Amino acid sequence: MFTLWNKYPRIGKQLHQVERLINERLQTNNPNVKELLDSISTDQGKLLRPGIFLLFSQLAENPTHQDEQLIKIAASLEILHKATLIHDDIIDDSPLRRGNVTVQAHYGKDVAVYAGDLLFTVFFSLLAEVMNGSVYMQYNSKAMYELLLGELSQMHLRYSQEQTIDDYLANVQGKTAALFKLACMEGIHFTAPDDENEHLAGEIGLNIGTAFQIYDDILDYSGTSADLKKPVLEDVAEGVYTSPLLFAYAKAPEEFRPLLAKKQSINTEGIQQIAQLVRKHEGVNEARKLAQHYTDLALEQIDQLSNKKAARQIRALAIKLLSRAS
Amino acid sequence: MFTLWNKYPRIGKQLHQVERLINERLQTNNPNVKELLDSISTDQGKLLRPGIFLLFSQLAENPTHQDEQLIKIAASLEILHKATLIHDDIIDDSPLRRGNVTVQAHYGKDVAVYAGDLLFTVFFSLLAEVMNGSVYMQYNSKAMYELLLGELSQMHLRYSQEQTIDDYLANVQGKTAALFKLACMEGIHFTAPDDENEHLAGEIGLNIGTAFQIYDDILDYSGTSADLKKPVLEDVAEGVYTSPLLFAYAKAPEEFRPLLAKKQSINTEGIQQIAQLVRKHEGVNEARKLAQHYTDLALEQIDQLSNKKAARQIRALAIKLLSRAS
Repeated sequence: MFTLWNKYPRIGKQLHQVERLINERLQTNNPNVKELLDSISTDQGKLLRPGIFLLFSQLAENPTHQDEQLIKIAASLEILHKATLIHDDIIDDSPLRRGNVTVQAHYGKDVAVYAGDLLFTVFFSLLAEVMNGSVYMQYNSKAMYELLLGELSQMHLRYSQEQTIDDYLANVQGKTAALFKLACMEGIHFTAPDDENEHLAGEIGLNIGTAFQIYDDILDYSGTSADLKKPVLEDVAEGVYTSPLLFAYAKAPEEFRPLLAKKQSINTEGIQQIAQLVRKHEGVNEARKLAQHYTDLALEQIDQLSNKKAARQIRALAIKLLSRAS
Repeated sequence: MFTLWNKYPRIGKQLHQVERLINERLQTNNPNVKELLDSISTDQGKLLRPGIFLLFSQLAENPTHQDEQLIKIAASLEILHKATLIHDDIIDDSPLRRGNVTVQAHYGKDVAVYAGDLLFTVFFSLLAEVMNGSVYMQYNSKAMYELLLGELSQMHLRYSQEQTIDDYLANVQGKTAALFKLACMEGIHFTAPDDENEHLAGEIGLNIGTAFQIYDDILDYSGTSADLKKPVLEDVAEGVYTSPLLFAYAKAPEEFRPLLAKKQSINTEGIQQIAQLVRKHEGVNEARKLAQHYTDLALEQIDQLSNKKAARQIRALAIKLLSRAS
């Protein structure tokens, strides 16, 4: 599990239960798919979304829902995330994710399509158990829709030199921030439902998620393959232009144009030249400023939460999470 | 729309509403995905699952749910079906479906992955609107799970000469019959809920769905490319061995073995040889007997339905639907 959670012993304990539940739900009697599902369940990630959900659930003095139900909601967030990662890796042709061989690389793209789909149904069935009848059924389907619309929209813009920071932010808010927003809102709703606090939690989630994704994209330009546990600048070769590149491009489009025009046929040397241009035109610094802006927004909103003790914990997590690349 | 529904004017009218609703739900303001979603919504199929659902809903004298709600449930069945078709076409590399170019052939496999996913969320959101709080939320997630497990299991067995008719039936019951079962059960439940009738309707759906899939597989061996609106014997080249082949294989494995051992590198001539062997060893006739067995089971169960007038309509539909290849 992510070292981030070491400082939150109660959440760490709950996250172990989340892992156990995910493993349980990926059990099958069908010998033809057992190996596949086992491989997905052992590949546990940072559990960021379940962790944030659980952190927000601690804002409640007298939770309305039992721990067992909270564990199911936490697991549903991670399973939805896992499903989209499996499908992302098909699109990106990724050999590695979190240092592990991806489903698509190990079992082929065909299996990965259905494996992701199967996780969607596990997500759906957890929700049907734990929140059937709640308006959060709709919120979950809306978050999933926004997530996919963000991915599709990003895909449509691949290799386009017309895309702007606004396009990028719209896609990030769909593909990443929508799920953070949901996690924060659910944390409040299923322990101490309150429209105003849920709305505030949603805004916090949106801003944390946006800042998180921007920092993640920055790492592509500032990290090494070993740090990232995946190939560096994979996104550029795939035609996904993130904020460091978009900021630098805006300053000197004519320098980037011939390199980006090579599209998927760009070689390692070309990618290195792009990385140099991004540094030369301060793309990473500008992207950091953008991420800092969303971090600041999140921190201001966190300070408005009524439970001050829990708010301090959330503040500490946000700072830790969002400082990893700065 | 499918000519099958011409004889059912009320259902034909409702199915037009289902088509309109599907089109509405696939509207988007996002210019980056508009063309894609438009292309999916214009490709309307036979509407078999919504039609069967609506037929079963007519068993009720005084329906508990309004027409508008029934249209949403009918649309949810078709959208789930469409989502899985889009993903199936990725796996099968299909250029055509129902005579139309597939999403994967037109937009690429990457887009097709997310397009199918997006339809899953539209399915999910329709359910959240119309049956939030109902146990049928669980039944829907269960049906979707069985459907995908059937697909994954079929994929795992590709090119295997060890597979049996039992494996085939288990996969058919997952990938096709589970959704027919759901459609029939929902038809009863959302108009005249009654445990016994719902159970009976589920059995009828399972048997109709199984027979339907067997006939569909028979067409691959008895139809022409023009009838099928897709390439003939595509399944064999993809390593999917259906009942006509499995029955014939069981009679003379040694004749099939060298041909099947070529796996994906088999050529058109090889496929024709397999087709001849299937005919020689009566594979199609045996498969027809199997389909007839499930049709007979369905007809017996239909006769047990309490509303005799509606039961006659269902019987007529089952006979028409399940006679197309015999």
